[in-house]
Amino acid sequence: MYQFQCDYNEGAHPQIMERLLETNLEQTVGYGEDHYCAAAREAIRKVIGRNDADVHFLTGGTQANATVISSILRPHQGVLCASTGHINVHETGAIEHGGHKVLAIEAENGLLGAEQIRKAIELHYAEDGPEHTVQPGMVYISFSSELGTIYTLKQLNAISSVCKEYGLPLFIDGARMGYGLASEGCDVTVQDIAQIADVFYLGGTKQGALFGEAVVITNDSLKKDFRYFIKQNGGMLAKGRLLGIQFLTLFEDDLYLKVSEHAIRQALRIRDAFMAKGFEMLVQSPSNQQFPILDNETMNRLSENFLFSVWQKIDDTHTAVRFCTSWATTDEAVDALITAI
Amino acid sequence: MYQFQCDYNEGAHPQIMERLLETNLEQTVGYGEDHYCAAAREAIRKVIGRNDADVHFLTGGTQANATVISSILRPHQGVLCASTGHINVHETGAIEHGGHKVLAIEAENGLLGAEQIRKAIELHYAEDGPEHTVQPGMVYISFSSELGTIYTLKQLNAISSVCKEYGLPLFIDGARMGYGLASEGCDVTVQDIAQIADVFYLGGTKQGALFGEAVVITNDSLKKDFRYFIKQNGGMLAKGRLLGIQFLTLFEDDLYLKVSEHAIRQALRIRDAFMAKGFEMLVQSPSNQQFPILDNETMNRLSENFLFSVWQKIDDTHTAVRFCTSWATTDEAVDALITAI
Amino acid sequence: MYQFQCDYNEGAHPQIMERLLETNLEQTVGYGEDHYCAAAREAIRKVIGRNDADVHFLTGGTQANATVISSILRPHQGVLCASTGHINVHETGAIEHGGHKVLAIEAENGLLGAEQIRKAIELHYAEDGPEHTVQPGMVYISFSSELGTIYTLKQLNAISSVCKEYGLPLFIDGARMGYGLASEGCDVTVQDIAQIADVFYLGGTKQGALFGEAVVITNDSLKKDFRYFIKQNGGMLAKGRLLGIQFLTLFEDDLYLKVSEHAIRQALRIRDAFMAKGFEMLVQSPSNQQFPILDNETMNRLSENFLFSVWQKIDDTHTAVRFCTSWATTDEAVDALITAI
Amino acid sequence: MYQFQCDYNEGAHPQIMERLLETNLEQTVGYGEDHYCAAAREAIRKVIGRNDADVHFLTGGTQANATVISSILRPHQGVLCASTGHINVHETGAIEHGGHKVLAIEAENGLLGAEQIRKAIELHYAEDGPEHTVQPGMVYISFSSELGTIYTLKQLNAISSVCKEYGLPLFIDGARMGYGLASEGCDVTVQDIAQIADVFYLGGTKQGALFGEAVVITNDSLKKDFRYFIKQNGGMLAKGRLLGIQFLTLFEDDLYLKVSEHAIRQALRIRDAFMAKGFEMLVQSPSNQQFPILDNETMNRLSENFLFSVWQKIDDTHTAVRFCTSWATTDEAVDALITAI
Repeated sequence: MYQFQCDYNEGAHPQIMERLLETNLEQTVGYGEDHYCAAAREAIRKVIGRNDADVHFLTGGTQANATVISSILRPHQGVLCASTGHINVHETGAIEHGGHKVLAIEAENGLLGAEQIRKAIELHYAEDGPEHTVQPGMVYISFSSELGTIYTLKQLNAISSVCKEYGLPLFIDGARMGYGLASEGCDVTVQDIAQIADVFYLGGTKQGALFGEAVVITNDSLKKDFRYFIKQNGGMLAKGRLLGIQFLTLFEDDLYLKVSEHAIRQALRIRDAFMAKGFEMLVQSPSNQQFPILDNETMNRLSENFLFSVWQKIDDTHTAVRFCTSWATTDEAVDALITAI
Repeated sequence: MYQFQCDYNEGAHPQIMERLLETNLEQTVGYGEDHYCAAAREAIRKVIGRNDADVHFLTGGTQANATVISSILRPHQGVLCASTGHINVHETGAIEHGGHKVLAIEAENGLLGAEQIRKAIELHYAEDGPEHTVQPGMVYISFSSELGTIYTLKQLNAISSVCKEYGLPLFIDGARMGYGLASEGCDVTVQDIAQIADVFYLGGTKQGALFGEAVVITNDSLKKDFRYFIKQNGGMLAKGRLLGIQFLTLFEDDLYLKVSEHAIRQALRIRDAFMAKGFEMLVQSPSNQQFPILDNETMNRLSENFLFSVWQKIDDTHTAVRFCTSWATTDEAVDALITAI
Repeated sequence: MYQFQCDYNEGAHPQIMERLLETNLEQTVGYGEDHYCAAAREAIRKVIGRNDADVHFLTGGTQANATVISSILRPHQGVLCASTGHINVHETGAIEHGGHKVLAIEAENGLLGAEQIRKAIELHYAEDGPEHTVQPGMVYISFSSELGTIYTLKQLNAISSVCKEYGLPLFIDGARMGYGLASEGCDVTVQDIAQIADVFYLGGTKQGALFGEAVVITNDSLKKDFRYFIKQNGGMLAKGRLLGIQFLTLFEDDLYLKVSEHAIRQALRIRDAFMAKGFEMLVQSPSNQQFPILDNETMNRLSENFLFSVWQKIDDTHTAVRFCTSWATTDEAVDALITAI
Repeated sequence: MYQFQCDYNEGAHPQIMERLLETNLEQTVGYGEDHYCAAAREAIRKVIGRNDADVHFLTGGTQANATVISSILRPHQGVLCASTGHINVHETGAIEHGGHKVLAIEAENGLLGAEQIRKAIELHYAEDGPEHTVQPGMVYISFSSELGTIYTLKQLNAISSVCKEYGLPLFIDGARMGYGLASEGCDVTVQDIAQIADVFYLGGTKQGALFGEAVVITNDSLKKDFRYFIKQNGGMLAKGRLLGIQFLTLFEDDLYLKVSEHAIRQALRIRDAFMAKGFEMLVQSPSNQQFPILDNETMNRLSENFLFSVWQKIDDTHTAVRFCTSWATTDEAVDALITAI
């Protein structure tokens, strides 16, 4: 059985495992203050082109989202977000548990438009008594999105302009940042992200690490006391060096880029195979998640040898499903799938 | 200038003021443990036909909602609610501040359907990994709704059935309970409400009191420790007898009913006047809130002598506005408005 | 039975009741934006000598504390407070419910010392990894304290100095502000309070109003969006004018001062009577709360005709109890008590 | 430089690293629903002697504490805890961030007494108006404690009796469970723990794993929906099998016990060396944390070659410090330390 149901089916990239093994018995101080974390921070700053950025390592995506949002918003503020956004649908209300409303906006293909953001903000202040409603306090987007789609540079700049105009920090969830940046037709670089976002993260869990997300804060006003927030939200790993070692391995020699490109190549092969056979796609995704719409018979047939996610029922005889690739997806698995298609 | 913009423009019903004055220098114990509160509880139990109900007096509606919901839900649960519900739009995220997601369902005319509720619950449990999403933990509806509409007895029973089937408590926001019950064509009684709801409140603020809401808990499993919740949420009035005296006055001699009927009479006169002149209504409301759609010219003309709320822009030349009546609305004011229409 | 168990046994000062009655059927806009609230704000600003202050009216003390603290602290911060402070012991964890630790400091007689505050702050930053502990984010004191004691001007200035040195806002709970200011030997004025505190409140509930607290914000950086916090915490009264009318009556003609002086006079008569009979006092209180230590026999005898609070067991045969006076305490009641002593 | 400042200086036990490496490219489903997690659950159930226990794997201790406590308490309840407890002092207010007061009790040597717990509960209910104060809702203790001390079986049974009498769940923080159980003179077994605690955890982070804590719920009434809490609190690892593999390795063949015994042996050697030289110990610790009181000169001298934690200043010339051992502490390091002592 080949597994395509998500992009975290395996352990870590062999280079990371090797590095963890080599350093296993070395003694270091805890909580991310060791030399590996320092080196990983430096490597990331170099790659993103921001020497002034603060870099922190957290253990997972839900935690990174909850921690960053908690550190930015005041209690009467909410976070603007696409209705499909991870924080709105798949974090068991972690943001609300932290006290904040997720201000969801219906979004086509997982992407928020600058004008939608502007309209939401203006609607709030146009209320007769805005203090009776939750104040938009920041904007959350994902790159790539939950539907595998990506923003163009122009779209990101437009979003950033609206955010700056109203003084709202822009936070980019980068659980699949590498896959987004390496995706077909992407005109955005990681340096662009680091200029546009006030805070973002570089996902490790889905991109070759055992686990971990690197939160990057570029806006000075958001840097203060962030370590308190990590600790309060349960994300301060005692053996922080495990994260340092992993991110150092990913970023010192372009491994992050390479694993991302690998995943995209495999994803596009799958997409092309489905399209060649006339299957429609739920969305046009250029990245590592592909959403073909299958008839029941095909779905049943493929499920005999392949794991994939059921995404959305289209009608009685058709269902949109999700196939994910990752750094670990083998040619063998994709070949088998293509043959089956 | 006659004010119709809301139903809390005046102080309290004269009988209440008189009673407050008479008792003003009497000494009582605090926090709702005085004999007026005890008598008011008894009066309410009698009116609603539930000797077994717990009755608590809180200072306002947002507080009553936050307190009740906080007392029922566990942290991973949310509250199902119409998208127009007060807790979803006009409480500055008080529910989220308490840690819970408001699970909003698009609702026609402010009313939730039993099947919508069932579908939302089933959708949750049908998820592959429901624990990644917020679990529906209770249902919140308003009687009358934010749009002046009311449920039929049949609709309420259907909602109750779904709630019982899935073990979700049903909470009815009764900030305008009296106006709902007295509204045109209503086939629901307060005794029905007390059988159907697990917890509900009888609004005082909009119904003749200076302020205050009487929370009624009929479900035994929700009664424990409720006073702790009142205190924690800042709703335990030191001079609790002020609430006792007011609710005693409202409920010992049908005053609650009388003031409600008065408000409905005035509201229907206004509605009929608008409809006679060919104005369309945003919704068919049988209660004390009426939503005529006005052309700009009429809107401007009326606003010279009357205050009303702007509710929703319909198109460039038309706007839906809200006129409210209450226990205090005078014939004089309504006559003047009808003449102006 | 004469009641001395608290300072909220009666309704409101007759002048306030009269004013509420006169204005009862007047129509005003809601939520504190009416002309009575505006006038009350002006009256308070004049009395405290700060034209630049923001003044807001809330419904109760626990709510005022929760709202102010929520508006100031970031999530990783706590509030320094005497171990006897109301927020630490008598608010059912309202501050923790809002997400913050109360950093309680053992305090003699209910008063915090400037050096205790400094030490707590320095201890935090001296930690090896302060981010593992809650950061002190503000200071809360009460004037008068829960034990009836008051700070001298010198003590307040010292506290203020430490707060300014470390950038921590100073919040003064003034549920009994008038009684504190009018107490025997007090060298602090309300103008001093308005210079020293970043935010404080003038209690109404215990000082002649039916209910209500006037929150005064003098520090510009704490003013933004405060109305959102009032609403979110359930403290925004629909008929806000009720609070405006009450505080206008209290502050336009020195009524606040007069009722406070009255209460102190009665309290000192009680104190002197106990001391003349050789009873010891738990603390030397110059204000409206007196804490004699009674032998069991005296306690039982007095409890036949007087209500008072049991405060603290001293030994098997002695108990410290509390007698409160207020604006409403009659000569008759005090005479009867003195005779009984 | 030999590091004794904590028990998480190294990576993982070599057997764990080997197992992670072997399984690295195997594909599994996520979120703890893989076969390694299932096997690890079985292994733990067998070792603790409770086939009926629910076992969940979380990423860290602060998170395990916050998640368990959040799953048990209602909003008006707090957790009873020794003043030295980790949740009270070293989690940046994570429990308060989740809405609950930590009800700290001054505790000698880090241990809570059954009578202290009883007294705290009785004091609450003896209040005139207990609803004004936080209700004790559960009890939290640590085994071993923050000071390396351990409870006797008799003490644990006494605590359990009080908890059962008042219906309060007992939660045992087992970040150092193995070190506690293996400590000198311990008469408690892990099977005892599993009978006495309603919920506890078996720490991995400090006991040979890279990271992770195994939460064990034995009380049926606390089991429902626990996975929602893990997710909401950011502790649900995408690649859950990493935790399964680690705990399987620790528990299938007594590795947990062996590493614990190793650490204790090394700790006692250090203790004995200090005591032989006449140094006093801050507490009599039988486990892997030792707290000698050093004169300044010795402290400075040792700090040239050894890392240890400064715990508490005793006087101007003496300081209590902490030396920790772990599964990874080498004979070489301990020999060097003993020689230096």
